[in-house]
Amino acid sequence: MKWHTDYHWMNTRKKKEFVNITDLVRQSVEAADIQEGMVLVSAMHITSGVFVNDEEPGIKNDFMEWAETLAPFRIDYQHHRTGETNGDAHLKSILFHHQVVVPVTAGKLDLGPWQQIFYAEFDGQRRKRLLIKVMGE
Amino acid sequence: MKWHTDYHWMNTRKKKEFVNITDLVRQSVEAADIQEGMVLVSAMHITSGVFVNDEEPGIKNDFMEWAETLAPFRIDYQHHRTGETNGDAHLKSILFHHQVVVPVTAGKLDLGPWQQIFYAEFDGQRRKRLLIKVMGE
Amino acid sequence: MKWHTDYHWMNTRKKKEFVNITDLVRQSVEAADIQEGMVLVSAMHITSGVFVNDEEPGIKNDFMEWAETLAPFRIDYQHHRTGETNGDAHLKSILFHHQVVVPVTAGKLDLGPWQQIFYAEFDGQRRKRLLIKVMGE
Repeated sequence: MKWHTDYHWMNTRKKKEFVNITDLVRQSVEAADIQEGMVLVSAMHITSGVFVNDEEPGIKNDFMEWAETLAPFRIDYQHHRTGETNGDAHLKSILFHHQVVVPVTAGKLDLGPWQQIFYAEFDGQRRKRLLIKVMGE
Repeated sequence: MKWHTDYHWMNTRKKKEFVNITDLVRQSVEAADIQEGMVLVSAMHITSGVFVNDEEPGIKNDFMEWAETLAPFRIDYQHHRTGETNGDAHLKSILFHHQVVVPVTAGKLDLGPWQQIFYAEFDGQRRKRLLIKVMGE
Repeated sequence: MKWHTDYHWMNTRKKKEFVNITDLVRQSVEAADIQEGMVLVSAMHITSGVFVNDEEPGIKNDFMEWAETLAPFRIDYQHHRTGETNGDAHLKSILFHHQVVVPVTAGKLDLGPWQQIFYAEFDGQRRKRLLIKVMGE
């Protein structure tokens, strides 16, 4: 079995932003040099997520508005007694989930025609890490 | 290591429907002929999900109503400027997540007594694909 | 490839409770004696979840309040026609997801500095099982 792990520093310009990381994941699979396998793509922070959906600007805006509706910024989260102000980002991380597993078949990411992989930043403008771990043979 | 990948075309009668796919996953594990392993069960579309819960008609109806409450159909999603009308289905896919990993132990799906695997269609009445990828030995 | 599976009985004092299981997962990795691998941590019940976030009492209270806001206890879930009263716990299980996959690199859980693994009980005060399955070499 081959194992290959890449770490990427993400540093978004905006506080909240979705970053298409499909090519990063593809590069890790190529570096691992496998034909069959699985790739774990996982945020290493508790205010970020990783998800699979559509590279379409409208739906990405809808996702961000929806995240704000279901997990809004609020002053009075108990978490803020620690001095933090990012309680909403923790909730958004749960809502979107912090990881996906991507199948690799015949040497390629085995995604559907519209599926793209996104890093979801909910508390950005600072350096945060993303893990891509490939296993396969 | 053995790798076995099956693709299934799903085509639900209703626009929104939960399909119990536990037997499909079990068949893939049998075809893979493994004793220990893991199975990735993943929707290949961005308006579908996969989840594990209970085969009980009431809770399935509750799930669908809950999905509509938290991720309602609306005319004014930005995604609809593309001509699509399925923005809510994208949100519901995020809410339920699009995949699960099922453990295999001693040749069997290692599920709890009530756990069943479901494909969640939120924009159906057309052909969509489901991936089941088994790894193990 | 090495495979190692542990089952833990969880029996929370409170009906709803988050239990930090990071050490349990670490013990399974040590028992598996691997350097590179992945760990599936999965609830075996349909009213529990598993997630990764922060060991901070305030945010854990915020999570529980948020779960109640988005997936509230209600008398009139259709699931309750079976005699059950835990429909909300099923919805909360979907919201938090029932499993995570944790990477193992150089013999250690490859988590970010604040990431801890939690079992999320939404219908407790009784014995329920958690599965930890390690694969690696």
